[in-house]
Amino acid sequence: MSRPPGRKQDSHKISRELFVLTYGALVAQLCKDYEKDEDVNSCLDKMGYGIGIRLIDDFLAHSDVKRCRSYSETADMIAQVAFKMYLGVTPSVSCSSAAGNEFSLILDKNPLVDFVEELPAERASLCYCNLLCGVIRGALEMVHLAAEVTFLQDRLRGDAVTEIGITFLRKAEDKKAKKK
Amino acid sequence: MSRPPGRKQDSHKISRELFVLTYGALVAQLCKDYEKDEDVNSCLDKMGYGIGIRLIDDFLAHSDVKRCRSYSETADMIAQVAFKMYLGVTPSVSCSSAAGNEFSLILDKNPLVDFVEELPAERASLCYCNLLCGVIRGALEMVHLAAEVTFLQDRLRGDAVTEIGITFLRKAEDKKAKKK
Repeated sequence: MSRPPGRKQDSHKISRELFVLTYGALVAQLCKDYEKDEDVNSCLDKMGYGIGIRLIDDFLAHSDVKRCRSYSETADMIAQVAFKMYLGVTPSVSCSSAAGNEFSLILDKNPLVDFVEELPAERASLCYCNLLCGVIRGALEMVHLAAEVTFLQDRLRGDAVTEIGITFLRKAEDKKAKKK
Repeated sequence: MSRPPGRKQDSHKISRELFVLTYGALVAQLCKDYEKDEDVNSCLDKMGYGIGIRLIDDFLAHSDVKRCRSYSETADMIAQVAFKMYLGVTPSVSCSSAAGNEFSLILDKNPLVDFVEELPAERASLCYCNLLCGVIRGALEMVHLAAEVTFLQDRLRGDAVTEIGITFLRKAEDKKAKKK
């Protein structure tokens, strides 16, 4: 990495409204391009993945974070440092499995939908913010953590809260090591 | 407007990298959708216009600006307040016409292209950041200022600097008033 570690400087900070509106334009364009909501969701996830694998360098360079020693620490880091840095909000985190590898990020307020009132009736299955899932998945993969990331609840679709589920998957190498 | 005036609060501030990468994904998608650079440029301009007419409310609510009394003040406001707020940079401004209605915003550094090395050879006419022109045009229109906004130079296309040209157009009402 070419940049020294340390807190992100103010010069990197911007108002989020232009971002939120630009994201809206992106989703609208994909809705023009693809008839099926599933295809829009999948495209947003793929785009997000491409962004996540590049954004992780920026995150590591500009945050003061240390290496996480558990899935739980990783989930907290995503919520308290990454979300705060890139979206200006801090979701709450809960662990939702006895195995300790499934987490929920609960967003009381989702800044990405600031200008969206509701989904049109014909787009009821759209995961409007699915890009975020891809970003998290891509960024985690770059620190050697495989995960499934999906929206479990979405206020835009009438749920009480917006909830992103992260399931950390056992690494391929772990499985190999166990077999030996 | 529902929000009280005053300086934008910190909670609205985000790191710009996610925005820059998301914008890149948008341009890439449009390049998939449209074969001709001119069509991509036009689409970005239109999207920007749609964003600008909504962003102006946010700008007026969150900046401390007073009503501009001249084209020159307006150009300075765009560069020093709006660019700073939404992109974290401050272009320099120069007036480029004796009539006092043409201005250039010169960007030494364009944050939107942070992750772009160069345009592919087959996309030599792409105005990568054309969304910005649309945003400025849309926002100005909402404060009753008609303007043409275009990229005059672009580092991505090999120019020495990136230069956005703003030409304020005489208002239709002015013309009518003169005729009477």
